[in-house]
Amino acid sequence: MTHSHLPPPDPRLDLVLERVVDVPVERVWAAWTTPDQIKQWFTPAPWTTVDCEIDLVPGGIFRTVMRSPEGQEYPNLGCWLEVVPNERLVWTNVFEPGYRPTRHASGADCDEFPFTAVVAMAPHGSGTWYTARVIHGTEDARRRHADMGFHDGWGAALDQMVAMIRHGSAARTSG
Amino acid sequence: MTHSHLPPPDPRLDLVLERVVDVPVERVWAAWTTPDQIKQWFTPAPWTTVDCEIDLVPGGIFRTVMRSPEGQEYPNLGCWLEVVPNERLVWTNVFEPGYRPTRHASGADCDEFPFTAVVAMAPHGSGTWYTARVIHGTEDARRRHADMGFHDGWGAALDQMVAMIRHGSAARTSG
Repeated sequence: MTHSHLPPPDPRLDLVLERVVDVPVERVWAAWTTPDQIKQWFTPAPWTTVDCEIDLVPGGIFRTVMRSPEGQEYPNLGCWLEVVPNERLVWTNVFEPGYRPTRHASGADCDEFPFTAVVAMAPHGSGTWYTARVIHGTEDARRRHADMGFHDGWGAALDQMVAMIRHGSAARTSG
Repeated sequence: MTHSHLPPPDPRLDLVLERVVDVPVERVWAAWTTPDQIKQWFTPAPWTTVDCEIDLVPGGIFRTVMRSPEGQEYPNLGCWLEVVPNERLVWTNVFEPGYRPTRHASGADCDEFPFTAVVAMAPHGSGTWYTARVIHGTEDARRRHADMGFHDGWGAALDQMVAMIRHGSAARTSG
């Protein structure tokens, strides 16, 4: 399968995390696509992911609810765009399920920043080559996402994923 | 192929054109996916479509340039989401190619309305059952699109497509 329709990352607009992790690619895929597993690793502690809903087809729902250490909940609604088992997941917060533009894509919440995430993976020895790329529409959106702690956050979440796969739990500190 | 991830149209938010046309489904597909054909029918006369670029894969470009009777040009940049030959095309103006959120999806142009278009077709006798559904994020966006003349415009364009297929030209009045 060629992916020629995805141009290379644009450093002005994209954020990229690239790592090799010591767990098999099939386990990384399962961690990204199984709600019970997402809840164990997706949010860096002491934040937690308390709910997750996945319909793993293009146009299908990807919904999570994050909870802050203070107990406030933040729902996130997105939509899958590409699903290629053990290779690639693409999803966005620009659409609700069924490719419906979200209210903030309609300008109702101009302080939000829409993005598309591309998670790519491939076998690498006994482990997995893993990249997460987040595609923004403006330099301002990229900068705000970077300032929110993209690299530390997505890196810490990946550490939690690997710990979950190796030890059967996310080994998170309790919040 | 099931399309269960596309919920039924929401009459508050969607606009739908449904017709049976007396041309084969393969010709309707070609009319929608070939730049030289798009330029012959896509814009109701006396407007014209003077340029078109298509990379017919999910994430690929769908770009058109429309020209008003006064000669002003209006570029439109979009991205394909689903490509199922002779069955279904899904594209959106929320993304540039490569699923990058457009500037107006980023809130830079809050007067724009983002949408996703689903064009479905199937053989119907010797003709084609044809629907075009446009999915909006808000009732306001749907209303503005309706007020712009969605039904007349998409209907007139479809008439031009059928004329092009039957007679080898769009039979448009010259602008």
